[in-house]
Amino acid sequence: MDSRPIGIFDSGVGGLTVVKEVMNSLAGESIVYFGDTARVPYGSKSKQTVTKFSAQIIRFLLTQDVKAIIIACNTVSSNSIEELREIFPNIPIVEVVGPGVHMALHTTKTGIIGVVGTHATIESNKYPELLLAKDSALKVYGKACPLFVPLVEDGWAERDVAYQVVKEYLRPLLEKNIDSLILGCTHYPMLTSTIKKVVGDQIELINPAEEAARQMGDILSKNDMTSDDYDPEYKFYVSDSEERFKEMAQIFLNKPIEHIATVPIEEY
Amino acid sequence: MDSRPIGIFDSGVGGLTVVKEVMNSLAGESIVYFGDTARVPYGSKSKQTVTKFSAQIIRFLLTQDVKAIIIACNTVSSNSIEELREIFPNIPIVEVVGPGVHMALHTTKTGIIGVVGTHATIESNKYPELLLAKDSALKVYGKACPLFVPLVEDGWAERDVAYQVVKEYLRPLLEKNIDSLILGCTHYPMLTSTIKKVVGDQIELINPAEEAARQMGDILSKNDMTSDDYDPEYKFYVSDSEERFKEMAQIFLNKPIEHIATVPIEEY
Repeated sequence: MDSRPIGIFDSGVGGLTVVKEVMNSLAGESIVYFGDTARVPYGSKSKQTVTKFSAQIIRFLLTQDVKAIIIACNTVSSNSIEELREIFPNIPIVEVVGPGVHMALHTTKTGIIGVVGTHATIESNKYPELLLAKDSALKVYGKACPLFVPLVEDGWAERDVAYQVVKEYLRPLLEKNIDSLILGCTHYPMLTSTIKKVVGDQIELINPAEEAARQMGDILSKNDMTSDDYDPEYKFYVSDSEERFKEMAQIFLNKPIEHIATVPIEEY
Repeated sequence: MDSRPIGIFDSGVGGLTVVKEVMNSLAGESIVYFGDTARVPYGSKSKQTVTKFSAQIIRFLLTQDVKAIIIACNTVSSNSIEELREIFPNIPIVEVVGPGVHMALHTTKTGIIGVVGTHATIESNKYPELLLAKDSALKVYGKACPLFVPLVEDGWAERDVAYQVVKEYLRPLLEKNIDSLILGCTHYPMLTSTIKKVVGDQIELINPAEEAARQMGDILSKNDMTSDDYDPEYKFYVSDSEERFKEMAQIFLNKPIEHIATVPIEEY
């Protein structure tokens, strides 16, 4: 038993889908979340900068006595995971890109896989690279969907406009006959029901957060570090704009958040 | 006569609507454009940082021998115009927020004015502040429209999805019976025809770039610095992602751009 919280961080609010997943599947665990709302987006920043910002966040999370960390950000996961594990060798770190790849390899039957994400994620080519390294016979098609994030953040995920936007973006992937679709941006699981309306039951939607939460559960079990608090604590920290984050938390978690504070993250 | 170029800059690609306006209304002038694509968006950055970044850009533009500068970015215009004029007292600088306010004061008959922009611009409250300082009897209503930028950048400005999004965002402003609408983000003039379909002829759309170009023309005339080159030069510089900028230029200007290069702007 270890009732210390799990630390989860992202460049902004999107990582709240990972929080939701951990709340559901590791229900006894307390959580400390950090969203770097002052420095978002990370996708356009250099690898060096992304690593530096992430290390500051992990140092802050360590002051909150976290027992393990989930990197909920695709950009940090792709660019900086090795460096961060080297800088912080004593704390278990789970990221989101590997888990997405792992799930896709298991769900695909035809070997034709789609990936959706931000421009930065799709242009980085990270998902195709990792998938093809595992199995060079796979076909992997990417598509940037820049309207998805504002659709989610405006609370429009289930409106007709969202349906039309999803249909438009996914058309080229559907034409390639993908049988699995990786949701390669933390915001996108919020569009799951709308995406399902467009793609039907024939395509498996892959939310990397599910596997990331499962991996975290495994690590905690193996190390005898799980917690089964009846009433776990959820604390949220941002680098800017608490009010807007609260609105987003309402949209993402479908309930109000109680503890939120701003942290001068560049001092860590 | 002064054939040196006009410098125009923005945090990213949006300032291309200002370039378009200058190409149209000051057709003999050469242009040097800088888009800070590596450090976009400015809206979430502190005033101090925005001023520092803008000063670097102006120093770069001065190395390109510009005769005058247009700040095409709403965030820089709102936050840093006084400081920049102090740092660079010897070059005429025109911005975009004052011109938008000026136009709205002239077009409104009922005194009920709407403003659309990014979250950062609307939350800054700059437009209402400046309008009410001129006439405290005005009613000013703001609305953040975060889907507009990706709609434009994906080349969807005239699709049915855009029409639906515009209708949704403008509904609360239309309910207030605005008679003038300030397009308070440089991307938004790209949506003019779709916005007109939604609001009809009863509402005047205000593109601050028109007045900014007119002010620039005035300044050049008064100082005997105009140019009437038959074949003016257009040069574009970015801090990152030339390829993506080229695509955007095609969408915004409706023609390919010839001269583009990347500049290590943090060294200026």
